[in-house]
Amino acid sequence: MTGVKRKKKSAVCWKIYALRCEDIKLWCLRRFPILEWATNYNVKENLIPDAISGMMLAIQQVTQGLAFAVLSSVHPVFGLYGSLFPVIIYAIFGMGRHVATGTFALTSLISANAVERLVPLSSNNFTTSNNSGVLGLSEFEMKRIGVAAAVSFLGGIIQVTMFVLHLGSATFLLTEPVISAMTTGAATHVVTSQVKYLLGMKMPYISGPLGFFYIYAYIFENIKSVQLEALLLSLLSIVVLVLVKELNEKFKRIIKVILPIDLVLIIATSLACYYADMEYTYGLEVVGHIPEGMPPLKAPTMNVLSEVITEAFGVALVGYVASLALAKASAKKFRYSVDDNQEFLAHGLSNVIPSFFFCIPSAAAMGRTALLYSTGAKTQVACLISCIFILVVIYAMGPMLYWLPMCVLASIIVVGLKGMLMQFRDLKKYWNVDKIDWSIWVSTYVFTICFAANVGLLYGVVCTIMIMIFRFPRAETLILKNMKEAECKFKTEANCESLQQVKIVSVNNPLVFLNAKKFHADLIKIIQKDNASNQAYDDINKCEQNTLLNPLSNGSCHGESSVEPCPNERCAFILDCSGLTLFDYTGVSVLLQIYMDCKNQNINVLLAHCKASLIKAMQYSDNLGSENPIFFESVSSAVGAIQINRNFSKLNEHSEV
Amino acid sequence: MTGVKRKKKSAVCWKIYALRCEDIKLWCLRRFPILEWATNYNVKENLIPDAISGMMLAIQQVTQGLAFAVLSSVHPVFGLYGSLFPVIIYAIFGMGRHVATGTFALTSLISANAVERLVPLSSNNFTTSNNSGVLGLSEFEMKRIGVAAAVSFLGGIIQVTMFVLHLGSATFLLTEPVISAMTTGAATHVVTSQVKYLLGMKMPYISGPLGFFYIYAYIFENIKSVQLEALLLSLLSIVVLVLVKELNEKFKRIIKVILPIDLVLIIATSLACYYADMEYTYGLEVVGHIPEGMPPLKAPTMNVLSEVITEAFGVALVGYVASLALAKASAKKFRYSVDDNQEFLAHGLSNVIPSFFFCIPSAAAMGRTALLYSTGAKTQVACLISCIFILVVIYAMGPMLYWLPMCVLASIIVVGLKGMLMQFRDLKKYWNVDKIDWSIWVSTYVFTICFAANVGLLYGVVCTIMIMIFRFPRAETLILKNMKEAECKFKTEANCESLQQVKIVSVNNPLVFLNAKKFHADLIKIIQKDNASNQAYDDINKCEQNTLLNPLSNGSCHGESSVEPCPNERCAFILDCSGLTLFDYTGVSVLLQIYMDCKNQNINVLLAHCKASLIKAMQYSDNLGSENPIFFESVSSAVGAIQINRNFSKLNEHSEV
Repeated sequence: MTGVKRKKKSAVCWKIYALRCEDIKLWCLRRFPILEWATNYNVKENLIPDAISGMMLAIQQVTQGLAFAVLSSVHPVFGLYGSLFPVIIYAIFGMGRHVATGTFALTSLISANAVERLVPLSSNNFTTSNNSGVLGLSEFEMKRIGVAAAVSFLGGIIQVTMFVLHLGSATFLLTEPVISAMTTGAATHVVTSQVKYLLGMKMPYISGPLGFFYIYAYIFENIKSVQLEALLLSLLSIVVLVLVKELNEKFKRIIKVILPIDLVLIIATSLACYYADMEYTYGLEVVGHIPEGMPPLKAPTMNVLSEVITEAFGVALVGYVASLALAKASAKKFRYSVDDNQEFLAHGLSNVIPSFFFCIPSAAAMGRTALLYSTGAKTQVACLISCIFILVVIYAMGPMLYWLPMCVLASIIVVGLKGMLMQFRDLKKYWNVDKIDWSIWVSTYVFTICFAANVGLLYGVVCTIMIMIFRFPRAETLILKNMKEAECKFKTEANCESLQQVKIVSVNNPLVFLNAKKFHADLIKIIQKDNASNQAYDDINKCEQNTLLNPLSNGSCHGESSVEPCPNERCAFILDCSGLTLFDYTGVSVLLQIYMDCKNQNINVLLAHCKASLIKAMQYSDNLGSENPIFFESVSSAVGAIQINRNFSKLNEHSEV
Repeated sequence: MTGVKRKKKSAVCWKIYALRCEDIKLWCLRRFPILEWATNYNVKENLIPDAISGMMLAIQQVTQGLAFAVLSSVHPVFGLYGSLFPVIIYAIFGMGRHVATGTFALTSLISANAVERLVPLSSNNFTTSNNSGVLGLSEFEMKRIGVAAAVSFLGGIIQVTMFVLHLGSATFLLTEPVISAMTTGAATHVVTSQVKYLLGMKMPYISGPLGFFYIYAYIFENIKSVQLEALLLSLLSIVVLVLVKELNEKFKRIIKVILPIDLVLIIATSLACYYADMEYTYGLEVVGHIPEGMPPLKAPTMNVLSEVITEAFGVALVGYVASLALAKASAKKFRYSVDDNQEFLAHGLSNVIPSFFFCIPSAAAMGRTALLYSTGAKTQVACLISCIFILVVIYAMGPMLYWLPMCVLASIIVVGLKGMLMQFRDLKKYWNVDKIDWSIWVSTYVFTICFAANVGLLYGVVCTIMIMIFRFPRAETLILKNMKEAECKFKTEANCESLQQVKIVSVNNPLVFLNAKKFHADLIKIIQKDNASNQAYDDINKCEQNTLLNPLSNGSCHGESSVEPCPNERCAFILDCSGLTLFDYTGVSVLLQIYMDCKNQNINVLLAHCKASLIKAMQYSDNLGSENPIFFESVSSAVGAIQINRNFSKLNEHSEV
């Protein structure tokens, strides 16, 4: 017997163990989405499109990496690292299969704020010979990347914290109009930040509230210092880029090859710059020395963490929001699902870990993700392949980028933002669907332009919530149409005569503090109209009814002026609470108040389809009459109860007669 | 003819004029509620109860005026003025007939903050002979009242601004639990501020975050400096007050006279203090010199306005909230209505105008309002009569208050706050009705205790909104029960066979960004369950149906595994949108997405009872199929449309056969 028992016990243990293993496996699959798609990866079908996509992506990663590193006010080489490490981390933890993480314009813009504040250009009193020994970069550059990496580190920590707090479920607060307006506004900021390169102007770093307008004011004041060579080159680059991309888009189906115009432009202009020696002849700004290879691992500057907390929050939220929107869009397009919370983890880790490798804050970029779509990438393998190419650039081709003119880089960035800026077209859609969402869009855009992306985002979310709170109390709380239908239905079923005073009203809203007042007013209105119409109707057959139904009436029928709301103890009122799925204290107290008011006016209120929690909450009050039950399982049982009540009083009447 | 025309014209003019007069009259009645009740005032019936109430109120106004002026850190005499002017203004503009405005503990506590910060006790380097000439008060005292009056002035301006902005309609955000917790917390603060008088201790002014705990820490550290005489007198006063008031309450019906125990206590202790010369013998703190008469009109100290803005907001909001709660309660009790916005005007003006008469911030107090109830006051005439008595005190009896011991005054205040402190009992009610509202109460109370009343109020409102926002998406969005009922109903009406695939679902919630995701998930679940059950059901009569209904089917019936969600072009789905009274962009886009998804899966979605604005918003999208109408006036017409469609395809089928 004991042997059997032991066997049974071990079997149970085994089951528990197996269960645990299953759990751990499921947990791993949930937290490491790479395990899910990598194990099912179809090498034959997917490797070739992924490899092509990866190559195209690498080109964009390199150009954007350089450009966004400059935008972050750090040395361009750090943009290359930023295009490598976050991509690997996101491929492991991220759920978006077509999401290309890496350097991102908006987060770069935010972290530039911290860099310029804590390590301003004026503090560069080191000579170029004063190198820190790391890749031959000056100490000034190392200080700057230290701050940018600190922003990335803290931003990532914030994102991971939000993952732990399950704040991914709060993303429903970020509505499409707000995200669209914020990203459009931020893209406008990025374009503004590139204007100085496009015009070849030397300009101080301007930021802060209304900095947007100060930048343009500065440009118009110093319009004479525009470098014509740079301006011409920028215009040429922009025209070429836009044209070729448009043509690519148009003839995509016919030629099936996408011309990597970015790469062509970079090579062409770099060569032109080198052979014409534009850097010295025209004084054209170029990218400059890019060191080869990678620096050893180093922690970000931790003692500035407390000073970059605003920027870290900005990076964490703006980066997450923009990336999530892209992940959701690609999930919708290619029919897979994305978990809001897991994305917090993925982006958090791809900010925290790379910050030890001299990386600037990262996020998914719209341009690159669109590229993955159009080049037919299937999985994150495309991104991983792009990493190999970027490694090649870092170790071998970096120095060749020396002669790339900054204005060409700026042109590439500006053209890359086309998609975001085109969101202006959404305005028409919002105007047609909901004017209020339209005004939220416009005001969020204005806030983003005047202040910053994170301020705009905060404003948009708060504004959306506030507007909803003030719209909510105005919504109708009761279905009148359903009432009529239900009434009609029951008329045919039961005794028509005695049921015309029973009104059935459906509650079709949550009953909370926001709309409790409106609910009260609506219901009182219905009750009053009800009584008024009853009285009008009653005038015809009042006589008959009085003798039939009213046990208190003396049978006489001489025009009694009924001032009392319901004189004959025969009004009843059924509230169908099946729609009342959410309530709070204010809601319950309004419901109780209505019940008491009606009781004082001789109107019976019966509640049907109440949830158990609602019944419990209402029964707590001592005022509820215990003589008659008021909660019913369904409308028909409530009608039945009224019926029985009436028959009983009729019976009494008859027996008296 | 022209004469007739002229006559007609003049008649029209007269009508317009009359209409305007009527408008002006209505406007006056709305803005000056005194015109409404004063013209109908029944002198015979109401004057005597009002006069008695007024006398009793005057006693309380005087004691509370002195006490709350001390609480405001200004000279006691200003409390007497504060019991006079605001009362007159409120009587003209206020709608609450039983609301006794005047000095108020919570607003006094807030304005004390500004007074102690801007004119600290240490700045009193004037000798007492250095009088400002106004009523023989020192310049120090005049500076202090200047600041308090400035807080009152700015607070009133804020209230009037809120009236202009119609923010009275935003009071639904102030839920009962929040108001209850905030007032209880503030009452706890007031009691704490009186402890030093009750114990007869000298103590510095302590405020700021956690000041509440520092005060008790200070008291326990200096417990030895407690003045035993003061402590005994306080205990005696409190016991007498509580006992007599309890007895009064108990035997109110029998003896019908309320013993003005406050007055008796004041007279008795003042006399005792005078004859025993306690001020010098025991060092007992007394009220001291109170000047006779009234000072000339003087503007508050305007140059400190920018420095008291926080306190002004606190006074404006806390005062308004507490007063409104009282006004609403009395309106409910005596069946008249109170306009939230008009109350903003009334309280605003009773802060602005009296601030020129050396008044501290005012509001309605619970204790005094309860007194008006219990003494049977009918209208604001009671309050106006109390003003006459207060005038007498100001001009004749002020100096007699010299010997009133401070500890007695403190006892009266503490006992007066009993009602507010008793709100702790509400906790049980909230626990039973809604646990979340219970926790809002507790956390708001803790915030009020740790910080201040205005911080607590802000926290409570924000917390209520946030919690609602996170509760909202969890509420059910669709009525399933109604679906079944409606289905059943139509089954009996129409051809049973062809209608079993038609599902009717009611939307019973607003469809906004908060719950759009949940709505989508709910609906998809219903559709899938629907299909699954259909498939199970279909297995029996699939054969017959296929041949009958599906024009594409080849008539064969050999177990096709239906992976496709709806293979036979016969699924339909009616969404009853009568409950959908509120929507935004996110809601509409979810609805459109569902429509598109269903269309791709061969499911027809028909919308019934849509509002015109919803139809317009949905039609904007180009994706809506124009081949079939999808909007119907009612559920039955939608069912009819499906019916016709099917008969048509049946007919096709038959004719083919």
